[in-house]
Amino acid sequence: MGAARGLAGQPAGAAEPPANGRAGGRLTLVGAGPGDPDLITVAGRDALRAADVVIYDRLVHPELLRHAPASAVRVYLGKRPGEPHQPTQDRIHDLIVEHGRAGRHVIRLKGGDPMLFGRGGEELEVAARAGIPARVIPGVTAALGAAAAARLPLTHRELASSVAFVTGCGAAHRGDPGVDWAALARAVDTIVIYMGVEHLTGIAAALVAAGRPAGQPVALVCRATLADEAVFVAALGDLAAGLTPAGVEAPAAIIVGEVARCREASRQVAAAGVPAAAG
Amino acid sequence: MGAARGLAGQPAGAAEPPANGRAGGRLTLVGAGPGDPDLITVAGRDALRAADVVIYDRLVHPELLRHAPASAVRVYLGKRPGEPHQPTQDRIHDLIVEHGRAGRHVIRLKGGDPMLFGRGGEELEVAARAGIPARVIPGVTAALGAAAAARLPLTHRELASSVAFVTGCGAAHRGDPGVDWAALARAVDTIVIYMGVEHLTGIAAALVAAGRPAGQPVALVCRATLADEAVFVAALGDLAAGLTPAGVEAPAAIIVGEVARCREASRQVAAAGVPAAAG
Repeated sequence: MGAARGLAGQPAGAAEPPANGRAGGRLTLVGAGPGDPDLITVAGRDALRAADVVIYDRLVHPELLRHAPASAVRVYLGKRPGEPHQPTQDRIHDLIVEHGRAGRHVIRLKGGDPMLFGRGGEELEVAARAGIPARVIPGVTAALGAAAAARLPLTHRELASSVAFVTGCGAAHRGDPGVDWAALARAVDTIVIYMGVEHLTGIAAALVAAGRPAGQPVALVCRATLADEAVFVAALGDLAAGLTPAGVEAPAAIIVGEVARCREASRQVAAAGVPAAAG
Repeated sequence: MGAARGLAGQPAGAAEPPANGRAGGRLTLVGAGPGDPDLITVAGRDALRAADVVIYDRLVHPELLRHAPASAVRVYLGKRPGEPHQPTQDRIHDLIVEHGRAGRHVIRLKGGDPMLFGRGGEELEVAARAGIPARVIPGVTAALGAAAAARLPLTHRELASSVAFVTGCGAAHRGDPGVDWAALARAVDTIVIYMGVEHLTGIAAALVAAGRPAGQPVALVCRATLADEAVFVAALGDLAAGLTPAGVEAPAAIIVGEVARCREASRQVAAAGVPAAAG
């Protein structure tokens, strides 16, 4: 990021020593993007090149680590689905404080964007409390990677004027009060569900029960933007009945709404008019 | 983007000639990101370097055009708020078809992400109908640029488990049926409004009428990630009463929800404990 126009989020007092540590320590939260390592931002890649420590987790593409200097400490969190979150998150906080106070530039590299289902807010709070300057470099969130991969828009003049991003993580079967599926079904046109594959049947059933048409299309985009990505389109009613297409597995973005027809429409036009041109 | 792991959205038949044109023509929709030119993706920047034609609009940072070869045709759309959309969008479609059929690589460079309030879906349809292969390189959407700039998360374990992105463009005072503010107020925790500054009072009033607390904070992030960015925090009730902070002007992202307290909390911690360290 050029000095003249750096992210204004970067604190002016970066040279000040933290309360209980050595000067120069700082935290940069960096969005790694949706999968393909070239979908990191130029600013994010440049920040990695200036890292003393990189803390990263499972959804970060390993090629991104090559941008960090050979001397940088690499801390892999190895967070996997089903593991309890709390201890891991506490460990991340400890690492940020420990390395930041030791005067190091800590890069916290996260799949997608740090501020959307990324715990970035908590990590900024921890850094602020420890007197460690922090900034955020945003990233391409998974939903937008999925939309690009499937070539379907999340909004469309005729089909959708609003979109919600929610997590399906545990929500449907544990009755998590965090997501009100019935209200959501009526309030927005497109619903993108992160971390929802495990609870797909329950979520689809809740949306149909709230009035979403059983024939409404759902795009399931697995491993979006990676070489082995796969896109499936199914009817909401079929998903509610437990008919999940073979091959659908996490990580996947679930895109519910009429916009999912755009993918089929585009493919049909291409197939009818110009074979193999826009497959 | 490396050949071995290119975006799978890229059509296999890219070498096929379109129905009524010369071989090699193709369209790449590229998200330019939220403002700072270094917030384009590495893949987006690389696509620009391979452009024959770049079609871009007002919210694209002029420095990005430097990545395109000197020989590339640059088409500035000059779309400004208040101008009618339809003729400009038709013109974009004509340009895509004309240059694509002439065998050129057309880069359609859009502020933010092409698939979220970006008309990307329509442009893909136009290309498909004309037999022009197309792919999408996603970008950092304005909401995530704003969240990074203001250093506030859009979701938070204790404050928000869902977020909706909507446009405020004309919605509040023309009674646009596209956005149901009352339903939205109840369905999601965080609401991010794009293009809403002009109708801020009406939108805030609608949200309060639907039950959002008058004391709920709203972050207004103007020109996020640019050198002259500015962040304001106001109470929803004050905005509904027409008390807009001086200096708020488009383009701005409006972030409504308890998460907006994180910004103040982080600043207070910093101010109390370590002056100038995390300001």
